[in-house]
Amino acid sequence: MAKKAVVLLSGGLDSATVAAIASSRGFETYALSFSYGQRHSSELEAARRVAGQVGTTDHKIVPIDLRAFGASALTDDIEVPKGRAAEEMAEGIPVTYVPARNTIFLSFALAWAEVLGSSDIFIGVNALDYSGYPDCRPEFIEAYQVMARLATKAGVEGDEALTIHAPLIDLTKAQIIEQGVELGVDYGLTVSCYDADDAGQACGECDSCVLRRKGFEEAGVDDPTHYRELAGTA
Amino acid sequence: MAKKAVVLLSGGLDSATVAAIASSRGFETYALSFSYGQRHSSELEAARRVAGQVGTTDHKIVPIDLRAFGASALTDDIEVPKGRAAEEMAEGIPVTYVPARNTIFLSFALAWAEVLGSSDIFIGVNALDYSGYPDCRPEFIEAYQVMARLATKAGVEGDEALTIHAPLIDLTKAQIIEQGVELGVDYGLTVSCYDADDAGQACGECDSCVLRRKGFEEAGVDDPTHYRELAGTA
Repeated sequence: MAKKAVVLLSGGLDSATVAAIASSRGFETYALSFSYGQRHSSELEAARRVAGQVGTTDHKIVPIDLRAFGASALTDDIEVPKGRAAEEMAEGIPVTYVPARNTIFLSFALAWAEVLGSSDIFIGVNALDYSGYPDCRPEFIEAYQVMARLATKAGVEGDEALTIHAPLIDLTKAQIIEQGVELGVDYGLTVSCYDADDAGQACGECDSCVLRRKGFEEAGVDDPTHYRELAGTA
Repeated sequence: MAKKAVVLLSGGLDSATVAAIASSRGFETYALSFSYGQRHSSELEAARRVAGQVGTTDHKIVPIDLRAFGASALTDDIEVPKGRAAEEMAEGIPVTYVPARNTIFLSFALAWAEVLGSSDIFIGVNALDYSGYPDCRPEFIEAYQVMARLATKAGVEGDEALTIHAPLIDLTKAQIIEQGVELGVDYGLTVSCYDADDAGQACGECDSCVLRRKGFEEAGVDDPTHYRELAGTA
């Protein structure tokens, strides 16, 4: 019987790649998405499509209410930065940062893993392209794994198997795309844009769109992203 | 201006005591409860009453869906063990264990703390009376704190102030009650029973009721618990 893995699946490029990587390593994958008051709910539609394409065994979408605490452009009515603002943002912690988001997402993944009897959780964090997010750093993932091993029945029973896999953590966006293309990921199904419309069409200008487009260029792969206008592809 | 603290408040005896302790240490308290498909929803009513009595600055009840993953007597239709079963249960990990519950609760507390600009989170875990729960052990709390410092903006900026306070961790139930009584906690407002009815009346027989009653006896404090029957008070 294949080993089970819980895969955090946002519907974006990175997590789609991670789901394909988990499958390629022989895991039976259980995809987990969250409905957390995203402005870009088309992300969840993308997550459903990706889960289908990758062939996950199960896909759960758990509603959580991060809006209760406010304070991020991704869930509040703060303007998503574009162009120069997006570039400046890359220097510090982005205003699109959602407090403790990965901590919360991993905690739900841990709960599901424990119920499934799984010791493997996959997350698509990336330290290079998103260095502004504290919870995307390798030291965060390592500390989370240490904590998670103590948090569960398996840990009490001396099982040190629980592993937080972050296979993209040191890759550039171009390397991620190259790996995904090799594994047959259809990036046309994914939505990365912070400001996508209901049809999942990307703005082409936000931080996430800029990084994504640059990745396709550097990988020498045709960009299958659905943009809602031809914004400065020059 | 008083420092802010987020306090996890279940409506039970332990967390009510913790809220009073946080206040007594000079913190402005922000109480956080969860609606997670508990069978004993009267716990949330108790949390509201306790938040009022202790004088919290704000009290949020966040809905989360742990039932999505199943696997615990507190959220499923598994029979809550009583009498002998409860005693046997104390030897191992209780069937009332909810996977990753404290990990999830602390993660939401961390998100709120970050938004509030607070570096202090209080949780009423107790290693002595609940040794069966992996996420009530001191080593879990310590590992959580290490992870949490890396998870947030403050950690990135080199601020090591974030602290997970677990002031009850080494106390017996009797010592907790003694401390709460000194601080003026009205335990008649709290509900600890795993199988309380809608009016918040306790069964008197479950693991939690047995521990609680024993605590009042050992502390020499009149038990203000509302039991729905006189079950073996001898």
